Amino acid sequence: MNMLYEGKAKRIFETEKEDQVIVYYKDDATAFNGEKKGTIEDKGIMNNEITSIIFRYLADHGIPTHYIRTISEREQLVKRVSIIPLEVIVRNVAAGSFSKRLGVPEGQSLQTTIFEICYKNDDYGDPLINDTHAVALGLSTFDELKEIYALTEKINHLLKDFFLKLGLILVDFKLEFGKDKDGNILLADEISPDTCRLWDEKTNEKMDKDRFRRNLDNVKGAYSEVISRMKQGES
Amino acid sequence: MNMLYEGKAKRIFETEKEDQVIVYYKDDATAFNGEKKGTIEDKGIMNNEITSIIFRYLADHGIPTHYIRTISEREQLVKRVSIIPLEVIVRNVAAGSFSKRLGVPEGQSLQTTIFEICYKNDDYGDPLINDTHAVALGLSTFDELKEIYALTEKINHLLKDFFLKLGLILVDFKLEFGKDKDGNILLADEISPDTCRLWDEKTNEKMDKDRFRRNLDNVKGAYSEVISRMKQGES
Ligand SMILES: Nc1ncnc2c1ncn2[C@@H]1O[C@H](COP(=O)(O)OP(=O)(O)OP(=O)(O)O)[C@@H](O)[C@H]1O
Ligand SMILES: Nc1ncnc2c1ncn2[C@@H]1O[C@H](COP(=O)(O)OP(=O)(O)OP(=O)(O)O)[C@@H](O)[C@H]1O
Ligand SMILES: [Mg+2]
Ligand SMILES: [Mg+2]
Repeated sequence: MNMLYEGKAKRIFETEKEDQVIVYYKDDATAFNGEKKGTIEDKGIMNNEITSIIFRYLADHGIPTHYIRTISEREQLVKRVSIIPLEVIVRNVAAGSFSKRLGVPEGQSLQTTIFEICYKNDDYGDPLINDTHAVALGLSTFDELKEIYALTEKINHLLKDFFLKLGLILVDFKLEFGKDKDGNILLADEISPDTCRLWDEKTNEKMDKDRFRRNLDNVKGAYSEVISRMKQGES
Repeated sequence: MNMLYEGKAKRIFETEKEDQVIVYYKDDATAFNGEKKGTIEDKGIMNNEITSIIFRYLADHGIPTHYIRTISEREQLVKRVSIIPLEVIVRNVAAGSFSKRLGVPEGQSLQTTIFEICYKNDDYGDPLINDTHAVALGLSTFDELKEIYALTEKINHLLKDFFLKLGLILVDFKLEFGKDKDGNILLADEISPDTCRLWDEKTNEKMDKDRFRRNLDNVKGAYSEVISRMKQGES
């Protein structure tokens, strides 16, 4: 199969169908715009599994997604989309770059849910932008942004609920959306401990890529704990 | 008179009336969050005059402002407000931090007018934020933001028109708003070549603080050219 794109955490392959691609999940991990590099053993297997369960859950609750089916330990078949070059970030609790940029202590609750968009552009460090920037740069239209925010808000409710049932607080997360050949906006990419901050409800322990970013121990253990709670949740 | 606050470009003094203050315009100029410092001869006199004319023009066109009257070469009497800690920026043409952050060449026209808000906080370098950040940080409410954007859009139309009649393109500008004791939102602070980018319509020459920022010659001459066009415009 022809590789279309190799990213930091995944590879995208062509299929016989023009409008479908295969996503292959790697063990590679990066942080701080690629400055820190490493691998997390079996991360690709775990994130493929986690993303698959979450995308099926979201689809069951009315979210249009790129997900078709999981085809192997590390591979998913998905609808090919043209990715809207925005990272859509939701913050339910202060953490990460938000805390650092604005001096808000990590863990502080917020008077309103924060929605951010960043311009997906490695050369400029995925900078924070606003809606008028996105439209001025030709990245999206105001109508598309409206649809993206509405979907994102719904996804936030669904995911907060989903994780809370597993004893995990959904602190923040990143989404990517794409357009299929008919112009429909679909949730794409992945949702996993690579793209979410998840804190244990009781101990506040980090159960996500922050363990890798901050050189904490037992990175793999955190990911596999998330999976095992999800499997208990399913049964 | 008791000085209430000394900023980088102005001093604020108490008056006998609790709800009025005097703004005194200095010649001091700073750029890049205070990293570059200097003075521009007679800038205080020129910016007091320019701001006075502009605020009277905006008031005549229905914009609520803090301006009461000009009381001396360097002083204005204004309504005391509690400043909403946001810098509201409008961009009609790409320039400055927008161009640098996002890789858009200066002078490029934009598919839509850009509205930005930055958190007025020197310790964090007046960072760009969005509406949800402003509300989450308790800086304003969504309703106040709506009112601020509506006023800002109206001000942009009025100012573009005003400057175009003087042969000047209003590239971008910064506004500050405050609340009076009754909670009314008023346009406050100043509007001058310190807070606007103005390019000569014919030559594209910079007629604003960028001459100081970029070490161009004849900084004072640019400010006084703006004044003399305004006076011709008035007569
Ligand atoms: N359904 C899809 N169709 C096409 N591309 C997709 C789809 N879902 C995700 N992608 C894209 O595939 C790539 C996944 O690779 P990976 O996550 O490793 O990229 P990355 O290193 O994060 O880099 P990037 O900055 O490109 O996102 C991303 O560019 C992502 O936007
Ligand atoms: N009507 C008003 N009532 C009270 N304060 C005002 C009013 N108009 C402007 N100000 C404030 O007065 C100060 C003007 O000083 P100056 O422009 O020199 O400040 P600055 O160096 O830009 O610093 P700052 O970061 O505080 O704006 C600003 O803080 C501005 O917000
Ligand atoms: Mg990615
Ligand atoms: Mg100022």
